[in-house]
Amino acid sequence: MKTRIYVTLKNGVLDPQGKAIHHALDGLGFTGVNDVRAGKLIELDLADGTSDADIDAMCRKLLANTVIENYRIERV
Amino acid sequence: MKTRIYVTLKNGVLDPQGKAIHHALDGLGFTGVNDVRAGKLIELDLADGTSDADIDAMCRKLLANTVIENYRIERV
Repeated sequence: MKTRIYVTLKNGVLDPQGKAIHHALDGLGFTGVNDVRAGKLIELDLADGTSDADIDAMCRKLLANTVIENYRIERV
Repeated sequence: MKTRIYVTLKNGVLDPQGKAIHHALDGLGFTGVNDVRAGKLIELDLADGTSDADIDAMCRKLLANTVIENYRIERV
């Protein structure tokens, strides 16, 4: 069973990686970029019996730092 | 206009970050994880007039390394 975890920085948390991407896009001549935020995408291939609670525990314990990051779970 | 870019490694490309996450999940006692692949999620806030071709150019020129990575564009 494929599951995707989207990890994004919470609003208000500084994002130097996003800033660098924004600056590079400007340098390449792409106008009209207002903001860039960088996050992570983690694709898990899980055994069929894995519960939602288990996946949530994986996110809270390892995949996301819940102090500064939000996560979203999507079963495919 | 919010746009999300999902960047993932192509099949067959070694993914040490995914391997490390897999190992860490095993160490935390999560069984039933068959595979882990790590990718990137880039959220762009673009001016309303930005064309699909422009976004595709951003991906090919900067956001994804098309030799080893696939990308997917999602307009929100």
